[in-house]
Amino acid sequence: MKACGLIVEYNPFHNGHKYHFESSKEKTNADVTVAVMSGSFLQRGEPAIIDKFHRTKAALSHGVDIIIELPFVYAVQYADLFAHGSVQLLSSLGVDTVCFGSEEGSIEPFKDAYKTYIKNEKKFKKKLHENLDLGQSFPTASRNAYDEIGLVSNTIDLGQPNNILGFSYVKAAASMPNQINVDTIQRTKSGYHDPTINEDIASATSIRKEIISVNELTKGAIQALPDATIEQLKAYQRENGQWHDWSYYFPFLRYLIETKSIEELQQIHGMEEGLEYRMKQTIKEADDFEGWMKLLKTKRYTWTRIQRVLTHLLTNTKKEEIESIKKLEEAPYIRILGMSKNGREFIQQQKKQLDQPLIANLQEFEHPMLQIEERASDAYYSVLSSTQKKRMKKQELTGPILL
Amino acid sequence: MKACGLIVEYNPFHNGHKYHFESSKEKTNADVTVAVMSGSFLQRGEPAIIDKFHRTKAALSHGVDIIIELPFVYAVQYADLFAHGSVQLLSSLGVDTVCFGSEEGSIEPFKDAYKTYIKNEKKFKKKLHENLDLGQSFPTASRNAYDEIGLVSNTIDLGQPNNILGFSYVKAAASMPNQINVDTIQRTKSGYHDPTINEDIASATSIRKEIISVNELTKGAIQALPDATIEQLKAYQRENGQWHDWSYYFPFLRYLIETKSIEELQQIHGMEEGLEYRMKQTIKEADDFEGWMKLLKTKRYTWTRIQRVLTHLLTNTKKEEIESIKKLEEAPYIRILGMSKNGREFIQQQKKQLDQPLIANLQEFEHPMLQIEERASDAYYSVLSSTQKKRMKKQELTGPILL
Repeated sequence: MKACGLIVEYNPFHNGHKYHFESSKEKTNADVTVAVMSGSFLQRGEPAIIDKFHRTKAALSHGVDIIIELPFVYAVQYADLFAHGSVQLLSSLGVDTVCFGSEEGSIEPFKDAYKTYIKNEKKFKKKLHENLDLGQSFPTASRNAYDEIGLVSNTIDLGQPNNILGFSYVKAAASMPNQINVDTIQRTKSGYHDPTINEDIASATSIRKEIISVNELTKGAIQALPDATIEQLKAYQRENGQWHDWSYYFPFLRYLIETKSIEELQQIHGMEEGLEYRMKQTIKEADDFEGWMKLLKTKRYTWTRIQRVLTHLLTNTKKEEIESIKKLEEAPYIRILGMSKNGREFIQQQKKQLDQPLIANLQEFEHPMLQIEERASDAYYSVLSSTQKKRMKKQELTGPILL
Repeated sequence: MKACGLIVEYNPFHNGHKYHFESSKEKTNADVTVAVMSGSFLQRGEPAIIDKFHRTKAALSHGVDIIIELPFVYAVQYADLFAHGSVQLLSSLGVDTVCFGSEEGSIEPFKDAYKTYIKNEKKFKKKLHENLDLGQSFPTASRNAYDEIGLVSNTIDLGQPNNILGFSYVKAAASMPNQINVDTIQRTKSGYHDPTINEDIASATSIRKEIISVNELTKGAIQALPDATIEQLKAYQRENGQWHDWSYYFPFLRYLIETKSIEELQQIHGMEEGLEYRMKQTIKEADDFEGWMKLLKTKRYTWTRIQRVLTHLLTNTKKEEIESIKKLEEAPYIRILGMSKNGREFIQQQKKQLDQPLIANLQEFEHPMLQIEERASDAYYSVLSSTQKKRMKKQELTGPILL
């Protein structure tokens, strides 16, 4: 069976994702699709709007065959680490081609860019550090360093968010011990950060923003979401009274900043360059999450960077934990969140040749990475009542979802 | 001016406290009364029903002249450390006599008991440790050790909660460098733990229990509370929508137990003998605070002991912090929460001979003990909205209350 790999968040699964999945399957001529999906928290440092299992159900209903979990330790990181964690899981599972959406839309410029990059890797790293030392934010420093080795103007536009991620996938794929191909499809109209919904293809950000602000599914959102997603969003809200958003976690963040010492805050992954002092100072003035973020944000501390630090604060993720994860060549397990009948056949076929155990729930295997996963999931559910939390967490201890 | 010292929690100030204050002043023939009062958290390991400043206002209105704060590091401790912190502050301020309420009601038996105790101190300590090693709870082990040196049957009943505290005051007073006298008055009818309100003298526990359960002032409570307390309780509820009770803090406790590692939990003051494992295990099953406490409680882990540990967990108070406080001979500052005109005269008179600075707010002095006070206050207010919290905390940064 020929397998196509997708790297996704499905937060939530919308028409653009459906298009990506269908086009990728067609383009790679695949028999089966495997999506590696982030769980409770996302790359931009945000809690997922609904839990991983409701999101898995929506994706399975619309034809994705297998959903595996991107471990939390990779999910809320800068592009290269995020890409390494994702591609490596797909590669371990024997996926033939990773197919990603990009603004560029064609794979050749990515491959050309990679050749240029490899030739100039040392120079790139030097430039990157110089730019960071100049006080540039990571995305800016990185884009400028790419520019300085001649990448941006000659090949792909690495100022575009999906091109950046895509380039990280290409780099990650090239470093895998098992060969894994890469391909890309053009992303449809709506931009990553586009704040309004005005077509049946809308960005996940705009959909979330709109429905969370009114706490119900709007007309625009319903137009942009496939049926199964609407069903799962409704089910989650019915069971738990809310969708997840940073605003609900603000009392916890405020409490943590105020009761932890500076030394304790400094242990948190990403807490650097005095951000801990800035957080302690600004929290006194903040009225809510949005207001606090505005007080925290500077040119150097981007919104995304701050949100990632807050995710690691909320989940009590320490610098040393992420450092020890970075040393791992491959994930110690592959966790299946859900699969279709077709997906099960593929898993049966691949099972014998896997190095890692295949697991479905948190209790099937012991590893620090899985303990961190459970902690992240507990932090994610901390805004629910105990009854709701117990019910939601049950799935983490049973699983997987079978279609 | 002759000063009478009272050691109080005023949670809230009720008719029994009014009686205690008036009788003590009369018995000691004092010109001025100084109460050392616990702030945000109380000796039995509970959040105060309303903040320290509203409680101070009620006490001042009913004639108490000076309210000083018992630092958090002493307030939520076993009787001897609680007593040491309290008596030492009164002694530093030049109070002549500490007068406490007790079941016994007469001071001679306490003095006799102290003589017996001093003669048998070594034996007592040995017995106490033996009893603890046998698995007895601290109160039981301590009472049995007193019994074994002939204290309980021959002098005072050290099975009674206020006799125990009183005996600790007597021991603390005897160890002060400045002479400070002790006296006692008989406590009125209602027992410390009496769960019902049925007279105009009721226990603070029964009053709190009754009004928190219905979130309003009941007829019985109004009968047991003087006017100023009723006014302050109403004002606090109007401003913040609630009175404080462990149930509001349960989401924070659950979050902390689930996201902290065993090693981090072990750093918390009072977290001993595997209580951290028991907490991690039982929190999964708990639906609310009361339910969790029932799962946690055993013969060895008394309700009070567990609540104290939870207070230290919520306020992030480490073992090493309390150990370093224990080494202090006297408090590094005296914080005045409020005073009457008469009280101000006394303070003016005593000011020159004080070793420590007199302060009113958290920003007037720098010391770890005061930082812990602020942390405890932030933890206490963590269940309020940011607007409410900012308003309530303002008083901590200004103060004192002047009548």
